[in-house]
Order: sequence, then structure tokens, then C-alpha cells
Amino acid sequence: MAKFKSVGVLTGGGDCPGLNAVIRSVARACFSHGIRVWGVRNGFGGLVENDIVELADKDISGILPRGGTILGTTNRDNPFSYAVPHEGGYVYKDMSQQALTNLRTRGIEALVVIGGDGSLRIANEFDQLGLPVVSVPKTIDNDIPRTERTFGFDTAVACASEALDRLHTTAESHHRVMLLEVMGRYAGWIAFYSGMAGGADVILIPEVPYKIEAVVAAIKARRAQGKLFSLVVVAEGAYPVGGEMTVARIVENSPEKVRLGGVGDKLAHELEELTGFESRCTVLGHLQRGGSPTAYDRILSTRYGVAAVDALVAGKTGTMVALQKNSIVTVPIRDIAGQPSNVPLEALHVGRAIGVCFGDEV
Amino acid sequence: MAKFKSVGVLTGGGDCPGLNAVIRSVARACFSHGIRVWGVRNGFGGLVENDIVELADKDISGILPRGGTILGTTNRDNPFSYAVPHEGGYVYKDMSQQALTNLRTRGIEALVVIGGDGSLRIANEFDQLGLPVVSVPKTIDNDIPRTERTFGFDTAVACASEALDRLHTTAESHHRVMLLEVMGRYAGWIAFYSGMAGGADVILIPEVPYKIEAVVAAIKARRAQGKLFSLVVVAEGAYPVGGEMTVARIVENSPEKVRLGGVGDKLAHELEELTGFESRCTVLGHLQRGGSPTAYDRILSTRYGVAAVDALVAGKTGTMVALQKNSIVTVPIRDIAGQPSNVPLEALHVGRAIGVCFGDEV
Amino acid sequence: MAKFKSVGVLTGGGDCPGLNAVIRSVARACFSHGIRVWGVRNGFGGLVENDIVELADKDISGILPRGGTILGTTNRDNPFSYAVPHEGGYVYKDMSQQALTNLRTRGIEALVVIGGDGSLRIANEFDQLGLPVVSVPKTIDNDIPRTERTFGFDTAVACASEALDRLHTTAESHHRVMLLEVMGRYAGWIAFYSGMAGGADVILIPEVPYKIEAVVAAIKARRAQGKLFSLVVVAEGAYPVGGEMTVARIVENSPEKVRLGGVGDKLAHELEELTGFESRCTVLGHLQRGGSPTAYDRILSTRYGVAAVDALVAGKTGTMVALQKNSIVTVPIRDIAGQPSNVPLEALHVGRAIGVCFGDEV
Amino acid sequence: MAKFKSVGVLTGGGDCPGLNAVIRSVARACFSHGIRVWGVRNGFGGLVENDIVELADKDISGILPRGGTILGTTNRDNPFSYAVPHEGGYVYKDMSQQALTNLRTRGIEALVVIGGDGSLRIANEFDQLGLPVVSVPKTIDNDIPRTERTFGFDTAVACASEALDRLHTTAESHHRVMLLEVMGRYAGWIAFYSGMAGGADVILIPEVPYKIEAVVAAIKARRAQGKLFSLVVVAEGAYPVGGEMTVARIVENSPEKVRLGGVGDKLAHELEELTGFESRCTVLGHLQRGGSPTAYDRILSTRYGVAAVDALVAGKTGTMVALQKNSIVTVPIRDIAGQPSNVPLEALHVGRAIGVCFGDEV
Repeated sequence: MAKFKSVGVLTGGGDCPGLNAVIRSVARACFSHGIRVWGVRNGFGGLVENDIVELADKDISGILPRGGTILGTTNRDNPFSYAVPHEGGYVYKDMSQQALTNLRTRGIEALVVIGGDGSLRIANEFDQLGLPVVSVPKTIDNDIPRTERTFGFDTAVACASEALDRLHTTAESHHRVMLLEVMGRYAGWIAFYSGMAGGADVILIPEVPYKIEAVVAAIKARRAQGKLFSLVVVAEGAYPVGGEMTVARIVENSPEKVRLGGVGDKLAHELEELTGFESRCTVLGHLQRGGSPTAYDRILSTRYGVAAVDALVAGKTGTMVALQKNSIVTVPIRDIAGQPSNVPLEALHVGRAIGVCFGDEV
Repeated sequence: MAKFKSVGVLTGGGDCPGLNAVIRSVARACFSHGIRVWGVRNGFGGLVENDIVELADKDISGILPRGGTILGTTNRDNPFSYAVPHEGGYVYKDMSQQALTNLRTRGIEALVVIGGDGSLRIANEFDQLGLPVVSVPKTIDNDIPRTERTFGFDTAVACASEALDRLHTTAESHHRVMLLEVMGRYAGWIAFYSGMAGGADVILIPEVPYKIEAVVAAIKARRAQGKLFSLVVVAEGAYPVGGEMTVARIVENSPEKVRLGGVGDKLAHELEELTGFESRCTVLGHLQRGGSPTAYDRILSTRYGVAAVDALVAGKTGTMVALQKNSIVTVPIRDIAGQPSNVPLEALHVGRAIGVCFGDEV
Repeated sequence: MAKFKSVGVLTGGGDCPGLNAVIRSVARACFSHGIRVWGVRNGFGGLVENDIVELADKDISGILPRGGTILGTTNRDNPFSYAVPHEGGYVYKDMSQQALTNLRTRGIEALVVIGGDGSLRIANEFDQLGLPVVSVPKTIDNDIPRTERTFGFDTAVACASEALDRLHTTAESHHRVMLLEVMGRYAGWIAFYSGMAGGADVILIPEVPYKIEAVVAAIKARRAQGKLFSLVVVAEGAYPVGGEMTVARIVENSPEKVRLGGVGDKLAHELEELTGFESRCTVLGHLQRGGSPTAYDRILSTRYGVAAVDALVAGKTGTMVALQKNSIVTVPIRDIAGQPSNVPLEALHVGRAIGVCFGDEV
Repeated sequence: MAKFKSVGVLTGGGDCPGLNAVIRSVARACFSHGIRVWGVRNGFGGLVENDIVELADKDISGILPRGGTILGTTNRDNPFSYAVPHEGGYVYKDMSQQALTNLRTRGIEALVVIGGDGSLRIANEFDQLGLPVVSVPKTIDNDIPRTERTFGFDTAVACASEALDRLHTTAESHHRVMLLEVMGRYAGWIAFYSGMAGGADVILIPEVPYKIEAVVAAIKARRAQGKLFSLVVVAEGAYPVGGEMTVARIVENSPEKVRLGGVGDKLAHELEELTGFESRCTVLGHLQRGGSPTAYDRILSTRYGVAAVDALVAGKTGTMVALQKNSIVTVPIRDIAGQPSNVPLEALHVGRAIGVCFGDEV
């Protein structure tokens, strides 16, 4: 049994409800083992910049229900390719040894990394360098491989589902087609789950390239039955058969510059043209990233935090804690392939059975 | 005391939380007077199309908390200039006599019109033709003159305020400037109220053309104090000094075609350029129009509905019920000028006193 | 593959968020198989009283987000021992053949029973009589054996967790011990989950008889650390070591007369005496049974409804649909023993690890 | 114009949503005048105990949406009759001079007292002693005279209204009479407003002693119309004609010992006996006191805080800020008589008009 005296914790990547709940859980679980806990501020950048503070019990008191992260975060900095000012611009340098030194100076022997895809890659590199690391899978998109659920997802689904409830009344009163664009560049988890929870008639996800004529047919079939409105949920990464994942590609090359929101607006315009029915799109955007986590996410976050410390103490480092068959397990970080975890096509059965259109069948 | 045997009720214009609460209240108050109630479907169009059904107690049972309107609505049809199919297109005809005939046939002697600006104008025309009308001021924008409050406004403010709570955590964790664009083409009520409730640092409204350098200065001043994020609420009708109310003008000429959402995105881009801080905009859009009304709006809606029937019974027709100095009164419809009711500049004092920037002072 | 032409659906037992979502899902899944669907009203009583109506698409439209059940329910009537008026009182008769006749008359060949413990027993008896039955596990208490999750539970936990958030602020401001009594006569699922989600310091459940001195010690230890308040969640069936499950026993003999709410009030009084700190109890009561289901419960309910129809169509009758290892399966109804499913003691580890007191260790 | 250099602020009495919003507003408004702000901790007790800390901008950052009070509060301590330990018990002494000395030592020249009835009396006594005081009317009960609205009330109404929405579904599904007991010992504001917002069929308030036969008749009349359930809201201070305000009287003599919750449970039992319909009561209790304030209350709290500082600066001390005819004004504290402000009987018209039973007419 590995016994650490001091452990660091950091949050990387985009905002996600439950970050504070994990931090609290990691800290409390460490305290109960007599382990000191250090908070690295502003993601991996804080490792390089030596922005590391010890966390006391009072620092984590009352943070369970709060959105955001008390440690700050960023989705930019990578110590292995770190932007260093140079001649009025930047050069990218490997600052990982500096990061390790900053930890060592404080006696910090291991790191809990709470983050998504990008953070996991960096965590793996540090683990290879000999720093024991355990990761916690964080993303509202639920697309991290080898775990059934990431924390933050349930809250994002709840937010999108509540948005659909709101749009429903307007759609029904105005006999409109109302679209909701939700996050999901590579995987349609939020669209699928919120669509099912919000009673969407059409759900479009990247896993199923859509035929516009299938969507039009579904909307017209409802009209024919006397249902004068339709609700459509569209993942930002959804694209038509023969089209391309435009958003995703742009993103790959230039992560910060992508103009989200285009997919749904474009589709609303198209559907209005093709059906003759008023169509309006709302882009949920950052609303689904923030705010207080649901009860479900607070519990999952707390379980993950405890499991991460359990893994550290048990010497199971180089791992990510994960939910498999509803149990918490650990999986090697290096096994988490680059491919995002997609909605399995057989899962759509529950939607098809109640008449939801996924855009693939006319 | 005028005594009607049968009264019609209709809902016109955009969706607005509380419509059903008013319908229920009007119907119940009529029932208690022994007056029969008829629901006109889909706004003023239903008058022309003769889509009018009697409402029984069971029809209005359970609708108090529901968003939307059981009667349907539209923001297009005007009986005094009604689109009639003609040679593959449309011609606009005065169908008001047809509307009156449809009412008369059923013995409907008076009308309660629940609607906004446009509906009030039509209501006034019918009143001039001798049909007793009482109106209920409906708009989430709170910009109808001579009433302190329209129903639906409190719910819209609550929705925008909750959105700000969500954006707050992301702004703070990411050290970002987060913008929220809310409705308000001519008046900044939603922006002002939700900004105050959500702790916005900057609030931009059509009543106060903004100087971009004042906004930049406010954001930079916060940085200088160690506050690494800022929350900005911007009404869709806000515009810079020397600029013009672009959105509003386009709207005037072509109400259905306006592309909303531009103001906030453009401003986010500008602020990122000028401050160097990451800036992101979320457009709240239709979310602020739908959903279950707040307790406040349910009560106000119920009060308005009862007051409308009281006015009918008292023979105070040709009026709009209104809230003045926190009491319900009636005002002549014809006195409700075309100018929207704006946020009075002295009301901004409460914001200035706690350091909110309205964009006019550097 | 069994092919039914007509299927009945009924809801039995107490109110539970998600009932309407299951009804909608069952009906829609039947429609897509070309099966007619009949709603039995007011639980098993409707079978005997012949209160059975065919459901059309419009009957189930819009009910997904609504609490309660459009079919009505009751937790009294059992066709196998049915209260029949007799000489000013009642005699209990077996009316099951009458029930079967009422179904047969309409050509209803199978039944979907959405209910808890009591309803499952009756469902099993009908299945033994040759009526194909599939059950859906319904209870906010999550204590039905052989399924990881019943629908309604997530909503109850969310409601209790939100209540704890509210009590938290008062506890903290007033330096009080605030208790929340939640449902759970035999099993502590709601208490455990909501306590973890709401940041409770002490969680008392029937699975772990508590020592009052352990609770007192936990509260005093917090004071000693400068934490002047404590949050306690107590299941209504919690009881002290050496005590007895008073509530549960009374309930067994006289299900309708039990006076809930006693456990928490008594404990608050006791803690105030023993700690000297102001202590107040709130009994959540019926609030945790009603209202709109969470997104999670809407999805689970929909999955269960589709699975029930899949089971019918596949001829897997005499079963209950269940969630095992996060997959939907079917289990024979007769295997669902009378014993409620309890919180496994090892699950408490996550709480102990972050310092929650379960009343068993001083 | 009086110019203060240092101002104290304290929160007294029970918890109330919006306390933090007022503190933030007072502090920010002072900062903008260059006035230093000191927080007195735990109500008036902190004045005597010298528990007074200066507030910096960071102390009030982020507190706007949070329930409770960062300053702590108590509904016990009165400096003019202060419990001082003496021979194993307590003697009550006038410690007001000590309180004034503690303020003077820090150069604190004026006090903002955020509190209810009891706090206002103490505030008035300090004002008489020459300490400039401005009060902010705080109570969820809305029963402070000479102001239309206290902050916290809208949030309490929203909480009770949401509880009614939850009970509604259960009442309807089970054909039950569901009762909700809400706060209001002397005045029925919460019961009246939440009852109107939640669609209650019967509303019982202290202002209108009820006849049980009127309530029974209302419930039976609904049955006769085919409405098989009823929703009843009862204020804790409601009492039958010829009865007495039991709760209120007990409270007067022994404020801390009163056992709330009795009124509704007793009434449920009585209604079940008299109507033969299942009746259940839920006591909302402390839930209506805590949690995040509504947007409405955040704005009102902010306005009150700014107005209090405006009054200080303008030399209008010895006053309470108040809302009259929807404008903020100041009224002399000494004019706030001991009698609570009641719901005016004419306000019930809106309820009667839609068929709500107030228990006074059969």
C-alpha cells in the first residue's frame, strides 16, 4: 500500500458542474487518511507557474453545491508544450520538469487530475515521467471512453431537458417547429438523453448522419395527425448524410475560434423552407456547462473523489476512475484511446420504439 | 352595470408565461357571474376563421401553472388587414365584419383580449366598432405604457437571472467575460432587472447608448482589483453612441425576418479584441418566453383576469387593466401610445450606487 | 413471439414521479406494434369496477413532464380481497374473476402493472391465473429487490437534496442543528443519497441502528473544529440500537393510520437536550412524492415502459422489468421476495471516507 | 448632509432569503461613498460581545444569490436586556452602553439594522440613545407595517407555491384532500399569496376565522362537480370562529418552545372525519426560510440596501426603508406599531371571484 504524505489536485479543461464536489471529496478523503492536500490553480498552468496552495478544511467547506471550480481552470495550458513569451510572441517549450520541481519542493508526491480528454493525455505523460497520477473523468459530453458516465453530464441533460420544457409550450401555442442546439461535437449523448427526457420528436446526433427529407417527413407526419408543432434537438456535431462534420473539423484545427451555434440555425432555416412551418432555433450554449450540479452529479462526483484517493492509497496509479456496470472501477489512463465514446446505436431503440425520428429513416 | 351573457377571450402575439393563468381567471370570474365564456383560438385569426369554442370548467382545470396558451396564439393575423388567398398569393382585406358576425352568431357580446402592443391596437379598433373590449397587458418585455408591470415579465427575469447564475460559475472559473443577450428591442427592462438580480457588472440597454470604451474600462478596473471575470447583460436593442438601433429598425419593416442574437456576439468579439480577455456570449432567446410562470406572475395574471371581468361587468370597456402604484386600475386603450414604456433613467441609480456600469460613464 | 391485440395498463400504490412517463412510453410502444392500449383507472380497483378506457394518442400527449398519473391510483384495492359493502360495513371478497371478465370483454389479453411491492404481489396472482402480466418497478423508496433503481427515486432524492440546500443556509446562519426527515420505512436509500448530495454531516437509516451518543459526538466534534452547525438526515424508519422499528411495525398492522414525522421531531428534541444546541426538524413528507420527474427519471421511466412492451411482445410475461448493472433486464415476479432491498453496508464507505457519521461509531 | 466615515451593519432575527443581498448592497453603496463598513456578527449579540469585523470587497463578493447571512444571526439577544451568566444561571442586564462603546472604539458612527419586528424595536432604542440607525424590513411573513413588501416574502411564496404544485399531482392522482401548512402566526400573507399561485381551493388565514362547515362544504361541492381532490393552504396562525389563536398565544409567552405544525395536522384529521375523503397535511416549516432568493427578492434587497445608505447619507436616520405604492421611501421607526400588518380583507376579492373558499362562507 502506497502511502503518500501530500497530494495535489487540479481541474483542467472547460467548466463542468461537479468540479467542486470532486475537489471536496478528494480533500476530505485525503484528510481522513492524514494526507495533506494542495490545490493547483488554473489547471496545468498552475503547475508550471508554481501557483499551488495548501487546502484546509475551511477552504472546501460549503462548496459541494456550487458550480465552477474554486481552483480555477483553463483549457489551454500544456506543460509539455507551454507557451513562453519570446520576442513579443510565444514559443512553445517543455516545462514539465519545472512542474515536477514545483511539486517536489512542497513534498507533493502524487496528483489527482480532474479533467477531460486533453487533461487525461497530459496526466498520462506525467505518469510516464514517474509522477503517480489518478484521473477523474470530467465532461458534460459523457464521451470519455471506458466509463458509462462522466460527472457533469446529468446536470447538462437536466438543463437541456428544462429548456425543452420551456420551448414545448411556445412550440405548442404557436404551432411551430422549435429547435434546441446542444453541445456534443463528436458524440450525441446530451442530445439523445435530453431529447428523450424533454419529449423531442426529432433527435439529430453525430452518430447518425441525417437525411433532411426524413426530418421533414417526421414533422409533416405529425401535422397530418393534428400535432401542429414539433420539437427538435440537434447536437452541434450533427451533420447530413454525404455532408461532413464541419464544426468538428474546424475545431480540430483551431479549438478556440470555432463559431458554435451554426448547425441549429441553419437547420431551422432549412426546415422552414421545406415544411412551410415557422421554425426557430435556440442555442443552449454555456448554460449547460454552469450552475449547481444535480443531486445525481453531486453523488457521482463524491464517489469519484473518494475512489481516486482509494486508488492512490492502493497504489493503483496511472489510472482513471470510471463507472462500469454501475460500479466504480479503475482503468489504465493509457488505454483511454483518443476516440470519443459514442452513443451505441442499439441504445436508440428506446427512442424508435416510441416514435422518435433520428433522421435516418423516412 | 352592463350585464353580458357571453364573453369571448383570446390570446394574441408571442408566447408569454401566465397566458393560461389569465384565461383561467377570466373564465372562473365569468362563471361566478353566470357569464358563459368562449375561447377564440389562435389569436385574432380565430375570430375571422370562426374557430371559437365554449369553455367549460374542465377545460381550464389544471392550467394555472402551465406555460403557453390552451387557446393557441399567433403574432400575424389582423382582421382589419387579413391575408386572404388570391391567385396563388395573398391580398389583404378588412375581415372585421366577418369577425363580428362570428361573435354575434354565438351571442358573444364582449371580448377580453390578452395581448401586447399589436393586439391592443386591434382591440381598440374593435372597440371603436362597438364591440365592448377589455385588454390585459401581456409581454415579457414589460414595455407597455401606463402599467408598472405586464405579466410574464417576472418569469422572464427569473429565467435570465438563473442563466446569469450559471454563467457566473464559468466566468469565475475561467477568468472570462461572459455575456448574456436577453430580449428587449426598444426597452431594457429584462436586461436591467435580470442584471441586477444576477449580479451583472455591466448592463447595456436601449435607453442608454453605450460607449465601448466605458465597458472596456469597467472590465479592466475589475481586473485591476483582482476580479478576473466580468458578467455583462445586453438587451438585444442596445446600441453604441453614434450607432443606431439596427435590430429595431429592421424589425419595424419586416417583423418576422429579423435575425436576433447578433448584438451580443458582436460585442463579445469586440470586448475580446479590446481587453485581451476571453469573451463568450450566450443568447437566451426563446427560453425566456416559455415555461411555467413564477408565483408572482401567476398571482398578477389571476388579478388581471379578475379585474378584466370586473371592468366588463362595471361597463368600463375600451380599457386595459393595468398596475399603477401597486393597485389594479383601468386605462383607456386609446391612451396607450405607440411608444414603448422605457426604463426611467433615475431607476438606474440603484445599479450605479453598487458599481454597475451602464456603458455611459468611463 | 406472442402477439397481443389489446393490452391494459394500470398504476397502483402511492404517487411517484414518472408514472405518466411510463404510461406514455407503454402506450407509444404498443401503438408502434399496432397494439391497442386500455387504461385501467384508479389502480386494481378499476379492474373490478370495470373502469377501463381506451387510450388514444391525444390522451398521452404532453404528459411526459407531469407528476401524478392520468389513470388515477390508490394504495388500497386488492381484487383478491376486495372490500364489498355489506350490511352497513364491508366484507372482503375475491373479485379477481370479475376483473378478468372485465378485461376479456374488451379483448384485453395482457396487463402492464406499474406499481410497488403490493402491486407486484397482486400482479403475480393474476399471472398465476393465466393473465400475462409485465410489471414496472415503481417506488420513490428504491427498495424493490432485484433492480438497481426504481423510477421516482432520483426525483425524490433531488427534492430532498434541494431541501437540504435550503436548510443548510439557515443552519449555518443560526448555528443550529437542522434535521430533515425523509421517507424510507424499511430502507434508507433516500436518506443516504440525499444526505450525500446535500452535504449532510449525519445520516441515519434503518440499515444501521444508531447510537445517540455517536450522533452527539459527531455534532460536538464539528463544534470543536469551529463548524457551528450540523445537518442531519434521518429516514422515517431509523431507530436506535436496542430500540425497535416502531414506525414500520405500526405500519404493518394499519397501513393507513401511521402518523409519520415522529422520528425526526423526537430526535431533534433529544439532540437539543444532549448537545445544548438549538435543533429543528423538518418533515419532507408528501413533497418528495409529487411534482415533475427529473430528466433522469423521465428517461428511466421511458426505458421501462418500452422494455415492458418488448417483454410482452417477446412472451416474457410473469416478469418485472429491472435495471441490473445499468442494463434493462426482466426478472420473474415471483422471485421478488417480500424483503425490501436495503442499502448495502459497503456502499456507506463513500460517506465514511469523507467523514459522514452514520450513527454507529463514536 | 450627514457624512459618516464608518458604518456598521447587522442581521437580526430568523433566517430570510435576501439577507446577503442586502449586506452586499449596503456595503457596495457605502464603498461608493468612501464609507468604511463593519459587519456585526450574530445579530445584536455581536454588538455586546464586540464581535465586529471590517468588511472588504472580497468578503461580499459572490454572496448575492446565497441564502442565509454571512454575518450570522440570532433571534435571542437584546442588548437592553442581555442574558449575563450569573451563579450558574443568567441575569438580564442593560448592556447597551457596552454596545455603543464597542462601536465608538472602531469609529463606527451609524448602524444599518436588517431585521424584523423585534430588531426594529431594539433599533429604535439605540436611535433614541443617539446612535443614528436605518432599518431594512426583513421577514418572510410580510407583516411589517407601513411597507408593502418585505424582502424574503417572494421567495417564501415561491417555495410554498412549488410545494403546492407537487402536492397537486398527488392530490389529483389519489383523489385526496392535501393540506399545506405555511408560516404566518399573525398574518396570512404567505398562505394567501401561495394559495393563489398554487391554485388552492381553500385558503385559511388568521385574518378570517374559519367555520369548519364552510371548508367541508367547499370540498364536497368540488366532489359534486366531479373534482375528486382539493388543495388547502393553512397559515399556522389560522383558527376557527369561536376558537382562539392558540399558536400565537403560546408563542407570545415562550417564543422558542412553540410546537409548530399542529394546526394543519389537526385540520387534516378533522376534514377526513367530516368529509370521508383521505386527507393529508404537509408542514412546509423551515424550507420556506432558506435557500437562494428569487430574482424579485434579490432586486428588492438590493434596492433596500442602497436606500438605507442613501437615507444615512441624507441624514434621514431613525427610519426604516419601505416600499409604498411601489416606490422606496423612509418611515420613522417609532411609527411602526407593534401590530403586524394584515392581509386587507378587500384583497381576498380576487380569490373569491375565482371561487376560492376562505372558510367564512358556506
